[in-house]
Amino acid sequence: MLLAFPETCGLLTPRELAITNEDVNTLLKRLSSGEWSAVEVTIAFYKRAIVAQQLVNCLTEIFVERALARAAELDDALKKTGKIVGPLHGLPISLKDQLCIKGLETTIGYVSLIGEYADKNAVLVDILEECGAVLFVRTNVPQTLMWAETLNNIFGRTTNPYNRSLTAGGSSGGEGALVALKGSPIGVGSDIGGSVRIPSAFCGVYGLKPSYGRVPYGGALNSLEGQDSVLSVFGPITSSISGLKTFMEAVIKAKPWLRDPLAVRKKWDEAEYQLKDRDNGRKLCFAIMWDDGVCVPHPPITRALKRVQEVLTNAGHNVIAWYPIEHRRLGNLTVCDAVLQLSENEARHRSFQERDLGCRLSGRFRLGYLSERRAPYRHYGSGRKSSYCRIFRARKAASLHISSGKFRKRGKISAPLDAIICPASPYAAPPHGHSKFNHYSVVWNALDYTASIFPVTTVDPAIDVKQPRESFIDAFDREVYDMYEPETFHDAPICLQLVGRTLEEEAVIAMTEIVDAALKATNEQL
Amino acid sequence: MLLAFPETCGLLTPRELAITNEDVNTLLKRLSSGEWSAVEVTIAFYKRAIVAQQLVNCLTEIFVERALARAAELDDALKKTGKIVGPLHGLPISLKDQLCIKGLETTIGYVSLIGEYADKNAVLVDILEECGAVLFVRTNVPQTLMWAETLNNIFGRTTNPYNRSLTAGGSSGGEGALVALKGSPIGVGSDIGGSVRIPSAFCGVYGLKPSYGRVPYGGALNSLEGQDSVLSVFGPITSSISGLKTFMEAVIKAKPWLRDPLAVRKKWDEAEYQLKDRDNGRKLCFAIMWDDGVCVPHPPITRALKRVQEVLTNAGHNVIAWYPIEHRRLGNLTVCDAVLQLSENEARHRSFQERDLGCRLSGRFRLGYLSERRAPYRHYGSGRKSSYCRIFRARKAASLHISSGKFRKRGKISAPLDAIICPASPYAAPPHGHSKFNHYSVVWNALDYTASIFPVTTVDPAIDVKQPRESFIDAFDREVYDMYEPETFHDAPICLQLVGRTLEEEAVIAMTEIVDAALKATNEQL
Repeated sequence: MLLAFPETCGLLTPRELAITNEDVNTLLKRLSSGEWSAVEVTIAFYKRAIVAQQLVNCLTEIFVERALARAAELDDALKKTGKIVGPLHGLPISLKDQLCIKGLETTIGYVSLIGEYADKNAVLVDILEECGAVLFVRTNVPQTLMWAETLNNIFGRTTNPYNRSLTAGGSSGGEGALVALKGSPIGVGSDIGGSVRIPSAFCGVYGLKPSYGRVPYGGALNSLEGQDSVLSVFGPITSSISGLKTFMEAVIKAKPWLRDPLAVRKKWDEAEYQLKDRDNGRKLCFAIMWDDGVCVPHPPITRALKRVQEVLTNAGHNVIAWYPIEHRRLGNLTVCDAVLQLSENEARHRSFQERDLGCRLSGRFRLGYLSERRAPYRHYGSGRKSSYCRIFRARKAASLHISSGKFRKRGKISAPLDAIICPASPYAAPPHGHSKFNHYSVVWNALDYTASIFPVTTVDPAIDVKQPRESFIDAFDREVYDMYEPETFHDAPICLQLVGRTLEEEAVIAMTEIVDAALKATNEQL
Repeated sequence: MLLAFPETCGLLTPRELAITNEDVNTLLKRLSSGEWSAVEVTIAFYKRAIVAQQLVNCLTEIFVERALARAAELDDALKKTGKIVGPLHGLPISLKDQLCIKGLETTIGYVSLIGEYADKNAVLVDILEECGAVLFVRTNVPQTLMWAETLNNIFGRTTNPYNRSLTAGGSSGGEGALVALKGSPIGVGSDIGGSVRIPSAFCGVYGLKPSYGRVPYGGALNSLEGQDSVLSVFGPITSSISGLKTFMEAVIKAKPWLRDPLAVRKKWDEAEYQLKDRDNGRKLCFAIMWDDGVCVPHPPITRALKRVQEVLTNAGHNVIAWYPIEHRRLGNLTVCDAVLQLSENEARHRSFQERDLGCRLSGRFRLGYLSERRAPYRHYGSGRKSSYCRIFRARKAASLHISSGKFRKRGKISAPLDAIICPASPYAAPPHGHSKFNHYSVVWNALDYTASIFPVTTVDPAIDVKQPRESFIDAFDREVYDMYEPETFHDAPICLQLVGRTLEEEAVIAMTEIVDAALKATNEQL
């Protein structure tokens, strides 16, 4: 199996495999004790990342000398002072190809941006370095960043590490694939409609989409600059759940609002992480949204939801049902009208430039790109100004409704809700070019709700048989239904999404840990 | 003098005058001890508000029975339990005619909204009532809310309590005038371009424009719904400086984000209020912006800035100079293109409806309104979509620049900056119809910076003589210069603005208290 290749290829030593397989927190402990040096940890992840690159084409930038020099500095500092430089001391971190690093090119997949070298670091890059991280690779994206797959004319296509005929998702597909292959312990992705969550879910790893401004965006490139209705956010993608808290706590404790005034001035709240105002998380109330009223998820996704329902109930939590509020309307407004509306011209402008320059490249990617882009663009009508008013009002109304604290009763249970658990997408990673517009992810961007991704299981064609259905919501629902053939999705990872309210990152991380622990405990019993 | 009329008219008893002249915190102490009952305090403010109404036409809604019933409930609760209902127990609070109260009409000055009764309270109304406040009147606004004066076809014009030939400012002009006459201890205004700050400054009282979402907006009416680039915010207007903290702390401690998900989940931070990370405020660094590069303030405004510079220097603080960054560009984009762009159609639509309905009313206001509206509208070109991109980028760039922590050196001083002090507007309250587009206030909305207003002095024609000027920035600067005739502005209050960064409400309030105390100490010495 592809995913096991780094372990079986013989290119990494047993120690390098041990390093790269380690949980983030343990890795940090061994780095801070000096048991593992930053240099050897960096080399180990580099080797594994380069193997990953050859398997799934996930990288856009490799800067070994710079990274090793930084790692050596950190080792020296630890030796001299006996103290770690910061909470991420020696930890290699990969970055989506949006986060500018001084002296390097950042293209976000546009040929027209080749040759533009950053004259300073993005704010997040500065913060991560000050925290002691070793930035060591950057990762692939789709051109425009506005697609749930990863393909562009410069670096080509990133494939899924479970099955190369499937997509790695997008737009942070390079990160998803790299982290799944353990070529990086923590990667930074961005998310305006699902771009952290979809690749995390398709690649079977953990991910977090924070609320607007919790992680600084200043100094990063983006394709939709100037659009204020729904904002892109950076968030971690990680192979071990401890990476979510480690990353967020480190970044927030660096007070990003002092360097990027668009970052939210909210300190890390350890009491919220400990769920102090929720009886320390002993008996939470989770709601499951089985479908969003736009399309019914494929059988393996529904099986995963049932599994989570069962383990949470067994662990003593309340589990109730959640019915979607305005999802179709919000999703359509966000993607079809609002988000893309203002950026379309700019994106097309760049695309034209790119076509000129693209002549230098092989026609294969360019033609492939153009034909495949047609599918997702089908949904994108030309927005109207009034959509802005509508989306804001709809969002406000829906949000107020959702968080009113009066949730629907189910049986005898009526409790304030702590989180919603729902699909990350209606399907596991589909074959290349088959990703569709995903209301399951984009609605939480429109509402600015915090959402995490956690792995549950993998597709098993023997269990996840195609179920006959007699009626469909509409042609789109039918289209999604028709996509499902168990053998196509064989072994594809299945992840789910946990959703909390705006700026509840601490609590969402803690609740994701609770769900994850409940799932792992059940797995061990099996 | 008009301002003294409530004290000299004989309509209020000495005890009622004592109540209405009292500082907010003392008022609350006496209410919580039972020394003054909520009923008598409410009656006292009602009497003074109704006198104010006859002087300056500041009210839109008076609901005596409801308010007195609430006050009696509060008195009963205190008697029975010995405990206050909340931190605002028994305090009368006035509201701008935007904040819906169940069962009452809210018109924001549109004739077309007459007869529409709210079926529920705005979130802030619920919170204030739960905090023990007695909501007792609502106050006048300009139709559309987008004007720095206060005039509409339903309620007519609000005039300045210092001089009725001058404007009270707008759009929260009813609040400014009412609070200045001590007809209300705390009023709630809203601000998208200066609408809390301009009337506070023109009427000589304290005001605070918080950052987006710090005070909940849910359930309130607004004229520019759906526009997300620059958001309107609610903030307090108060005759005693203690009102700013009292109001903000009470509202934020009620956790507005649990009821209005567009409210920011940031707790009240007492350490930030105590300026713990700024050496407890012992030696702060203030920067004075003498002009914004768009127009030079009138002589009394500059005199007030010099006064503040002097008292802060004498009090041991650093005072440096601040040079405007992108003010012309940001201000123009915000008002001319972005803010009004999307709302223009809606505003015009309502205006047309209103013209139909307006036939029922006297033509006087309608014609007056239309002719006077022409002046400010002159600046409002038809926006282009790309303005959104531009404003966001400009704002981001300027903001990053501003808060980089590297402030300009002046002489030997180079310190991180704590706050900017600048004019609230280039002039004191002008004659009706002469308010102009005010970059001094709107730029801080574009940047989402927290800003307060505090009184400094009044115009004195003997000191504030017109200075000859040889050169002008442009025709607008010349126009502002030409407006100034000392006698016209005689006795008009002069306030200044103190600006901190996004979500720094606690620190901005504390620093305003420091500046205010330094001014008062100097006044006492004189």
